[in-house]
Amino acid sequence: MIEVEQVQKSINDYIDNQSFEGKPAELYAPIEYILRQGGKRMRPTLCLLACDLFNGNIDDCMVPAVATEIFHNFTLVHDDIMDQAPLRRGMETVYHKWSSDIALLSGDTMLIKAFQYVLNTKKDYSYEVFAELCKVALEVCEGQQFDLNFETLDNVTLEEYLEMIRLKTAVLLGSVLKIGAIVAGASQENQKAIYDFGINLGMTFQLQDDIFDCYGDVKIFGKMTGGDISDNKKTYLYLKALELANDDDKKILLDLFRMPKGRDEKKIETILNIYDKYNVKNIVTKLMTEYYENSLQNLNSIDIEEERKQILREYAEYLYIRNK
Amino acid sequence: MIEVEQVQKSINDYIDNQSFEGKPAELYAPIEYILRQGGKRMRPTLCLLACDLFNGNIDDCMVPAVATEIFHNFTLVHDDIMDQAPLRRGMETVYHKWSSDIALLSGDTMLIKAFQYVLNTKKDYSYEVFAELCKVALEVCEGQQFDLNFETLDNVTLEEYLEMIRLKTAVLLGSVLKIGAIVAGASQENQKAIYDFGINLGMTFQLQDDIFDCYGDVKIFGKMTGGDISDNKKTYLYLKALELANDDDKKILLDLFRMPKGRDEKKIETILNIYDKYNVKNIVTKLMTEYYENSLQNLNSIDIEEERKQILREYAEYLYIRNK
Repeated sequence: MIEVEQVQKSINDYIDNQSFEGKPAELYAPIEYILRQGGKRMRPTLCLLACDLFNGNIDDCMVPAVATEIFHNFTLVHDDIMDQAPLRRGMETVYHKWSSDIALLSGDTMLIKAFQYVLNTKKDYSYEVFAELCKVALEVCEGQQFDLNFETLDNVTLEEYLEMIRLKTAVLLGSVLKIGAIVAGASQENQKAIYDFGINLGMTFQLQDDIFDCYGDVKIFGKMTGGDISDNKKTYLYLKALELANDDDKKILLDLFRMPKGRDEKKIETILNIYDKYNVKNIVTKLMTEYYENSLQNLNSIDIEEERKQILREYAEYLYIRNK
Repeated sequence: MIEVEQVQKSINDYIDNQSFEGKPAELYAPIEYILRQGGKRMRPTLCLLACDLFNGNIDDCMVPAVATEIFHNFTLVHDDIMDQAPLRRGMETVYHKWSSDIALLSGDTMLIKAFQYVLNTKKDYSYEVFAELCKVALEVCEGQQFDLNFETLDNVTLEEYLEMIRLKTAVLLGSVLKIGAIVAGASQENQKAIYDFGINLGMTFQLQDDIFDCYGDVKIFGKMTGGDISDNKKTYLYLKALELANDDDKKILLDLFRMPKGRDEKKIETILNIYDKYNVKNIVTKLMTEYYENSLQNLNSIDIEEERKQILREYAEYLYIRNK
């Protein structure tokens, strides 16, 4: 059995020992910059934990695990261009530190590098890992495009929102777990179960992020709350409030979310008061808990000794009860 | 033996029968839009011709050939964002018709789709094709970044320019030919020779494009000449003129290429007069001819019946003597 901290450390050590240098420097320096920032390394961690769950050799799994981390960082670099975001993880974004052209091209380079890493996995399963990475990469692009579309749509449904976060966030967690299972040679049924575990965990994670963004403790969350409201992000909280609100409150919600993006304390306070009036936080927390419980059921359904599942169960719990 | 027109038609038929539809439409409609525009289909054509040269089955080669065409169009979609180009092939660019966000994301999707196509090639060689596409994709990004860097550099050398166009244009021609050879099961030596043929042909093609941009017949070339001069593009013509010019002319060249981008007939005329004074067109034509002759030597060195080489020899000649 392995420990999560040990896995995270081995990923960070591995990435620190990789060279992403190359010429021209403008293309490769941003890759080193973003990959050296650390972060939770959630995707490669889940990938290695899934490999270990099915008695695979996690050393064999390190290369595809790192490929998923490079892929994830590619999405961040391109998303930050579209959001014109100056900061991420408390550091300047590539877009802001260099330029949008450089972020575009070095992002492209990271996407290609992610695929190139997969080529360095064992040939026994490199094809399957490649296919999974292609599939999920398309889905993540689709999720991001839906997210962009929602910015200018008034009539997004709750189902459409859930489908968007499934594509934008959850499928990648499902796929990294499945890739770990592929490397370990797990059965199709077990691959499916661990994938579903990741989907449900991803939904839990994203809904919790939405809640934190409104109600997180600034000291622990590390950033000011109300970011999504300032950006007019139509999260589940907003859409649920819109569904439940009376006509007057609905009008306020719609009007305030048509304001130009930007921080406005009065707007944030008004919106949060409406959320409270309709008990929206509890409703979303309940939904999030359902996803969490479904993820545990997926884990239960896996045909392997219970004790091997403990680390993933604890990791899921850690994500569920985290406060940032 | 096959004919070039027949190959081009089969590529266009194949692409026309492919569906690139998907949801959200904003992501997939631009892909259909750009891939249905036609164009010379130079990359898949060369890929299939190389496969045929080595007695391969060109039906087997269609999928990787189309993958290279999708990849090439991905580069155009992203380049047009960086250049803020309104038109390409006489049609609105994706960037201009939709938005830079959509061009960014649908470009990413095309890059992933290109890799996904390779997955549909036979497993015997899908790994090798994948590796070649990853390698060349990184090089093309490097070439584009060098090109961007050169915009704000005064002291680009002739060697640096040639290396930039090798990366940005020539390597992809080399790689598509090599991919055709891989599919046909050609020897390592023959793969190398056909790759080198593509590199030399690509250099010929790009230098000729640079000449056309200054001296092309508007009626045949289909667009106004002087575009590179208006964009302050430091082509081989410019760099050679700068090398040969006396101090007064050098100052004029440098000053005019530090002007903001944009069409200025007086500037174009002044620059072309300096090019003529130093006989730059002939010098570049001579260099281009050297690359062309080298490409024919590469073809000669290939260990296969001479008659099978005829179609590629004619295609190279067609590119060399083309007038647009």
